[in-house]
Amino acid sequence: MKSIKIKIPATIANLVCGFDILGMAINEPYDEMELRITQIPDIIIRHTDHFGLPEEASKNVAGVVLKKILEHLNLKNGFEVIIHKNIKPGSGLGSSAASAAGAAFAANVLLGNILSRDEVIHFAMFGEELASGVRHADNIAPCIYGGIALVKSSNPIDIIPLNTPDLFVAAVHPQVEVKTSDARQILKKNIMMKDAVTQWGNIAGLIAGIEKNDLSLIGRSLNDVIVEPVRSILIPEFDTIKRKSLELGALGGGISGSGPSIFMITEKKETADEIVRMMKSVYDKIEVESFGYVSDINPTGITIIEHNH
Amino acid sequence: MKSIKIKIPATIANLVCGFDILGMAINEPYDEMELRITQIPDIIIRHTDHFGLPEEASKNVAGVVLKKILEHLNLKNGFEVIIHKNIKPGSGLGSSAASAAGAAFAANVLLGNILSRDEVIHFAMFGEELASGVRHADNIAPCIYGGIALVKSSNPIDIIPLNTPDLFVAAVHPQVEVKTSDARQILKKNIMMKDAVTQWGNIAGLIAGIEKNDLSLIGRSLNDVIVEPVRSILIPEFDTIKRKSLELGALGGGISGSGPSIFMITEKKETADEIVRMMKSVYDKIEVESFGYVSDINPTGITIIEHNH
Repeated sequence: MKSIKIKIPATIANLVCGFDILGMAINEPYDEMELRITQIPDIIIRHTDHFGLPEEASKNVAGVVLKKILEHLNLKNGFEVIIHKNIKPGSGLGSSAASAAGAAFAANVLLGNILSRDEVIHFAMFGEELASGVRHADNIAPCIYGGIALVKSSNPIDIIPLNTPDLFVAAVHPQVEVKTSDARQILKKNIMMKDAVTQWGNIAGLIAGIEKNDLSLIGRSLNDVIVEPVRSILIPEFDTIKRKSLELGALGGGISGSGPSIFMITEKKETADEIVRMMKSVYDKIEVESFGYVSDINPTGITIIEHNH
Repeated sequence: MKSIKIKIPATIANLVCGFDILGMAINEPYDEMELRITQIPDIIIRHTDHFGLPEEASKNVAGVVLKKILEHLNLKNGFEVIIHKNIKPGSGLGSSAASAAGAAFAANVLLGNILSRDEVIHFAMFGEELASGVRHADNIAPCIYGGIALVKSSNPIDIIPLNTPDLFVAAVHPQVEVKTSDARQILKKNIMMKDAVTQWGNIAGLIAGIEKNDLSLIGRSLNDVIVEPVRSILIPEFDTIKRKSLELGALGGGISGSGPSIFMITEKKETADEIVRMMKSVYDKIEVESFGYVSDINPTGITIIEHNH
């Protein structure tokens, strides 16, 4: 029977000043997913973890993506999915995007690559819609393309893969709940023109820094005068962690996606190690459980581990 | 006696979606300026053109820049300046920036290059302040650095020179008056968040396109949902010229600086030639005099024609 096993990277959306348009794939943490084509027209989903995610296809991120693909191609068969989730749901590290992008990617390979990469992204976005109410691509695009991806537009889909700079990422996931929908709700509908100009100066600097592999420019462009000041209130100890990270030599960083994870970029792995230790100790002190990750950029996106034709 | 003669390029600020942060130097039109150090502490300015610009130092863009430099360095000598202006004042093609940047650049060379490039920009900005009321660097930076320059910040000065893509520019200057201060006044103080996100997707695409020399990406990023819809109202036939330019094969374009000049970028020189002919014929039809320019990007910025030590 046709089956495939894939490895799916975590992703950091927004990259501070690139709200809704930028995302980056990282090597740690990652999910694995197994997908099998079946003859019965059902979508069966199983999780090997204990996160308690729904397994009913219409309520599951991977499930709705697979349903949409079957409908679109007018196919009468079904899928069996086993998800080994390591990217914690609600972490802000692209957990729902991993399930959505993984399902679309794996199904497409099993069906003989009949969809283009942009169509894979199109179908994966239905999973994001289920998870957060918004059909966004800033986690899905880097998850599929790897590296850093610019979502110039999500309708029509216009993804620009950027250069992969030589940097490391320190990330911490404190065990507090920040719902993506809440994090979106608290944003202002109107912003000041002068703040917007500051923001697009930073975005322009960030893209130039990424393309030129200029880590100092990347660092001094990672400033967000619009979203971070509002959303960081939802994350305990955000300001302390950011300040201490910069003191320890981080080039810059901020909220991963809509939080609560915080990420920092560094030039050296040792700096990232040290920052993660500091991050965890800050949360230990206030008795908030946390998980830390040190990673480099994942340049390839989703990869195939096993494929039975 | 120490003297210098320089050639100063015109510049296109904003580059559509990069309001207040981007500028590009072009080879046509350009100014020439002669500067001579004198022993008397006066600044004497002469124009060889008929634009009627003020020649009193404190009211002249080059004059205020030279005064600031003399004061800063605590020098007791003076300058004699002859300006051959071809970049029409009020055209939106960086006429005041050319005088300001030219004066600062030339004085610095005559004084033995004691100022850094960022200090030259710092002093030149006083000229922009006199001309428009705002100490901005988005014309001055490309005028001095050449090519396309990103003004990531003007206080402190943080200029990022970008790649120089292989493209041509068609520009038209209709003889209507748009004051920079008026063009600034009509802008909204607050904008919608969703428009800002669209805008920074376009800016990010534009920077990526410039760095990758991807002309198609540059073209489809040259969209401005914030400034152009407001300012283009001040420019007769703007929509017609933009539509016809795209029909003739322009990759994109918009208002140069705060107008009234309109610029379009093209892959081939012949396309730019054809677009300029069309632009002029549109203005001929409504009996507005206009000047047309076809140029490539000026990669070097201000250059020295003659230097007597």
